[in-house]
Amino acid sequence: MQFSPLISALIDAFKVLPGVGNKTAQRMAFHLLERNREGALNLSKVLHDAMEHVRHCQRCRTFTEDAVCDICASAKRADSGLLCIVESPQDVLAIEQTAEYHGRYFVLMGHLSPIDGIGPAEIGLDTLAEQLAEGGINEVILATNPTVEGEATAHYIAQLCREHGMTASRIAHGVPVGGELEYIDGNTLTHAFQGRRQL
Amino acid sequence: MQFSPLISALIDAFKVLPGVGNKTAQRMAFHLLERNREGALNLSKVLHDAMEHVRHCQRCRTFTEDAVCDICASAKRADSGLLCIVESPQDVLAIEQTAEYHGRYFVLMGHLSPIDGIGPAEIGLDTLAEQLAEGGINEVILATNPTVEGEATAHYIAQLCREHGMTASRIAHGVPVGGELEYIDGNTLTHAFQGRRQL
Repeated sequence: MQFSPLISALIDAFKVLPGVGNKTAQRMAFHLLERNREGALNLSKVLHDAMEHVRHCQRCRTFTEDAVCDICASAKRADSGLLCIVESPQDVLAIEQTAEYHGRYFVLMGHLSPIDGIGPAEIGLDTLAEQLAEGGINEVILATNPTVEGEATAHYIAQLCREHGMTASRIAHGVPVGGELEYIDGNTLTHAFQGRRQL
Repeated sequence: MQFSPLISALIDAFKVLPGVGNKTAQRMAFHLLERNREGALNLSKVLHDAMEHVRHCQRCRTFTEDAVCDICASAKRADSGLLCIVESPQDVLAIEQTAEYHGRYFVLMGHLSPIDGIGPAEIGLDTLAEQLAEGGINEVILATNPTVEGEATAHYIAQLCREHGMTASRIAHGVPVGGELEYIDGNTLTHAFQGRRQL
């Protein structure tokens, strides 16, 4: 026995969500059917609209429903002469929440990973090269993740910057503020020592 | 800074799902935007259809898009003369998967909970009384959850059955098969002793 065709289809459809298996999908389906049909209809509508209209910003490649995202459209941001390279739109949000950085972004939407067939073109480095050639940028800040792929991507882009006679910097890696030294992994501690600054 | 309006709306819309907060909703939204727009469009469509068309079976109150669900429509099931009372459609699935029971069901879609304003009418006991009066049922099996509310509901329905001169039985509660005695809670053990049977 199975649930009725429409309910089975709904449970299957929920499995496209990350980390959602059969049991969770069932719980979601019945929760919405029992308690929140209005919210579900709204989700259905917004989901459809977002999938149809959200595309990449022509300048920084982040997700937006406009041709150019709000940050790229801001003249103040362009005037700063700063360009921060990140891997994902969520990284942009994290940096924006610090309210410390006021330049533009370039969102790679991934990182170099030749084994998966992701080369420079797939992460938009041709667009980035054009922007570097255009001028108006004084410093490129590399804020890719401190993983093997993120580091490789940062080095590749640093090389690209050098070719365009541009300064590239990497964000600091070290002991997180509020962290306790004894619980920090050796790799991070090594970075912290290598990146030490004179007081 | 926030994401673009449509993306923010999508993240908010995902929060209607049980156990989904801001961070998970973000992950879901970006996962679908980046990797599975087709699956997301399908989810949107099925979700809409299900919310519009799924209603309660006229006989057993489970969810179905037809007037009467498959189980209630089956003549074989009606012939068995058995009626099993459960709290939710998921309970029906669990019992069906044992392939041991071949009667009909009655799905309460909840349990008696006067403190939340859920009385006999809210869990369809008027419909159940009509079905008991109609005849054709030899035994009512009470398979509500072994919680305080589930037990209270079972006792209430057993009373209803007595009024209609019907046999009501309660499923056995005791040590789960494969369970180890030393790890079973006292309440369950008490039930296991009270429910002992002669060999």
